[in-house]
Amino acid sequence: MDDFLKIRRRPEFRQEIISNNLEIVKLAIASSVSKDTFIIQAISTIDDLDKLCNLLTRRVREWYGYYFPELSVHIEDDEIYIRQILLKSKEEFMQEFNLKVSMGPKLEEKDLEAIIGLVRSVEQLYSERESIIHYLKELMQEHCRNLYTVVGALIGAKLLQKAGSLKHLSQMPSSTIQVLGAESALFRHLRNKKIRPPKHGIILSHPLVMNARRDMRGKRSRQLAAKISIAAKVDYFKGEFIGDKLKEELEK
Amino acid sequence: MDDFLKIRRRPEFRQEIISNNLEIVKLAIASSVSKDTFIIQAISTIDDLDKLCNLLTRRVREWYGYYFPELSVHIEDDEIYIRQILLKSKEEFMQEFNLKVSMGPKLEEKDLEAIIGLVRSVEQLYSERESIIHYLKELMQEHCRNLYTVVGALIGAKLLQKAGSLKHLSQMPSSTIQVLGAESALFRHLRNKKIRPPKHGIILSHPLVMNARRDMRGKRSRQLAAKISIAAKVDYFKGEFIGDKLKEELEK
Repeated sequence: MDDFLKIRRRPEFRQEIISNNLEIVKLAIASSVSKDTFIIQAISTIDDLDKLCNLLTRRVREWYGYYFPELSVHIEDDEIYIRQILLKSKEEFMQEFNLKVSMGPKLEEKDLEAIIGLVRSVEQLYSERESIIHYLKELMQEHCRNLYTVVGALIGAKLLQKAGSLKHLSQMPSSTIQVLGAESALFRHLRNKKIRPPKHGIILSHPLVMNARRDMRGKRSRQLAAKISIAAKVDYFKGEFIGDKLKEELEK
Repeated sequence: MDDFLKIRRRPEFRQEIISNNLEIVKLAIASSVSKDTFIIQAISTIDDLDKLCNLLTRRVREWYGYYFPELSVHIEDDEIYIRQILLKSKEEFMQEFNLKVSMGPKLEEKDLEAIIGLVRSVEQLYSERESIIHYLKELMQEHCRNLYTVVGALIGAKLLQKAGSLKHLSQMPSSTIQVLGAESALFRHLRNKKIRPPKHGIILSHPLVMNARRDMRGKRSRQLAAKISIAAKVDYFKGEFIGDKLKEELEK
């Protein structure tokens, strides 16, 4: 016993314990990164890229607009606008839209090249966004297949993001899931009961709610939230695949 | 005369006049786009790209950080961080920094591929930013060579952007140029005379002002603004190249 105490007091011993402990903790931290984390990172990145693409497309509409202002009127969708610029020249567009004179001046090769370079970058961002969506879908299919089947990849991932993890989402009552993402409206209601509570948060963008009549939306989102809650619970406890059944019940 | 009036009243005649006028106006608009416009567009795009690169690099630091958190501590510069990730693998980094254990877990090929895809996009944005800076330099050299020589491409373009055009910049008194970009501080001073007026706006980032002692900065920026004002006037009226002389005088 005395020997042991002596060993313990030796500085090398302490240091070894500390360094071993540190490595154990590092490994523990390493193993705490779960698939949830990547789903949340992926959906956050998609949100970021959305914002950036919008910002840069606005810039392109302004800059390319000096060269060919008429195009912005003819193509409203941002992504199509960007891709079309890379495909066709101004002359081809003018033939296509039956324009005789453009309000934009002729540009030197160098000026046009600078704009097109920017357009190419924006297109590349759009492609990157798509490939991350693709990756997100794969992740969701593996990790929370039921949730994915009921609401799709984007809405499912956003719910996960708001909840923080699949575990938290699975523990939430369906009424919370229903208003997830509408927190500001919910608290406005809680502070002042005269203001009605929100009927839907993130799940508003689900087609079942979106395409419903206005007075049916509350009911639809309640039903949808109930199914999401079941799906999340089954996913978390690695249950069977029941997404198809849930979806069928919803559509009825 | 009567014949002429008859012709004028014919609807085809009116329509022809209208359509001809329209085309003339379109051509006039086309020719109103000057080099100024492109300089301003280029510098705005560079600003945008700066913002985006920051945002995306923060995202990468978070996402890649789950895989290899130690790297963010070792490389502080954003651009180098991004470029290094593409050059080396985690194992190589760990050897380089003498790390035994990483707090990040091993990832599946697919997960890592998604992150690297994003990193590649960010790197591409950095390159795009550089090529637009290159383009801006060329533009400035052609269009306002004196201004470019005195303050460089980025500061010169920012002054142009704030002023709206080279014409406006050339008409400004040098005291206005001195505080261009510090409007909020200037108006704070004008509302409340107790607050001192700003000593410099955009031109603060010029090395002559930046590297001066604190109490010398006001003087330096006044001198610099005076030279900028001369340079802009000469550039606008397409005078000779006197940038070298102006710069020399400043450096004395």
